[in-house]
Amino acid sequence: MPSENVLADQYSLAPGTIRQAVTQLVSEGVLERFQGKGTFVRRPSFDQSLFRFFRFLGRPGERVVPEGRILRRAVESAPQNIRDRLEMDEDASAICISRLRLLSGQPVLLEKIWLSFEEFAPIMQITDPQLGPLLYPIYDELCGRTVASAEEELMVDTADEETAEILSINPGDPVVVIERLAKGFDGTPLEWRRSVGRADEFRYQIEIR
Amino acid sequence: MPSENVLADQYSLAPGTIRQAVTQLVSEGVLERFQGKGTFVRRPSFDQSLFRFFRFLGRPGERVVPEGRILRRAVESAPQNIRDRLEMDEDASAICISRLRLLSGQPVLLEKIWLSFEEFAPIMQITDPQLGPLLYPIYDELCGRTVASAEEELMVDTADEETAEILSINPGDPVVVIERLAKGFDGTPLEWRRSVGRADEFRYQIEIR
Repeated sequence: MPSENVLADQYSLAPGTIRQAVTQLVSEGVLERFQGKGTFVRRPSFDQSLFRFFRFLGRPGERVVPEGRILRRAVESAPQNIRDRLEMDEDASAICISRLRLLSGQPVLLEKIWLSFEEFAPIMQITDPQLGPLLYPIYDELCGRTVASAEEELMVDTADEETAEILSINPGDPVVVIERLAKGFDGTPLEWRRSVGRADEFRYQIEIR
Repeated sequence: MPSENVLADQYSLAPGTIRQAVTQLVSEGVLERFQGKGTFVRRPSFDQSLFRFFRFLGRPGERVVPEGRILRRAVESAPQNIRDRLEMDEDASAICISRLRLLSGQPVLLEKIWLSFEEFAPIMQITDPQLGPLLYPIYDELCGRTVASAEEELMVDTADEETAEILSINPGDPVVVIERLAKGFDGTPLEWRRSVGRADEFRYQIEIR
């Protein structure tokens, strides 16, 4: 973010007024101040995300972003339960993206992503390879929607034939399912995502004190 | 714990000396001070334990301790990997307890518990029903060993025939496995436990900010 003095000049406001507004936004968790570096829009820390506990997503401390390959992208009506999570009207259109995540060419996660078409229409205009890496910076830059927090839920299921074939396991083998609802600064739901991975690659650790 | 003045009298020490020792033990996490209530030996908070995410273990905030039924209790030599976790010598004997946890009479978790025989010998002297409820208070009172922290690891497996029959599922069905190493105040490993439950009863939630 520009410095407080630059903002004060730009908007012809007293530096104290800008300072007060920034302090307010810091306390709301929208901005973050870093001593000697300036003020930044806060991004949520996905270090705690359940996804990092798939062993193939790297050792602790190591940051590995698996390659993404778009399998399908369409504008359609979303199922009831997803419309509910995204707080979408019954007649509203949704973007549905199926994406495969690969590490060293090996499929590791199968993702199904839902977005409101009204809010994320630019996502239908870009090429598949542009949707391969991290999506949240794209939502930010292309659609002006910033993911500020997320809820994740982990459960265990068994693989259907299609999922089994993609993940190189047998139908009926256990899979770990992670559902994530990503939200904006004001708590508005932005994206719903269901990711499926091989259960034999999953380990979650916790320390109790 | 007795008040600091009582301790000072009892050990013929200056109140300041007792106070210093208590402050030291509080900072080490051995004792906890509660305003107006006194000083207590700290117990770890198992509110974060992965076990609470089995839905049958109750709704959030609700504390349900399932009934425990001892299936088997024996003194034997422990497998290499368990001796390693418990830092036991190769020729040391171990107590092995198999326990079934039930809720409203329905089996929900199958536990296998390992302890050093040398440290927990009194556990072999008591009756099965005494080992049914929570074990850590028994370790405390009977063996003078206090569990101060624990490491838990969650993974997914498939049920073998014996486990499937006990949990009323089919062999090969997914199960959630939680391994827990419980440790004393000085980090000494005390108990190793492997618990197996039906995967369809398991849900884990996390919030990312």
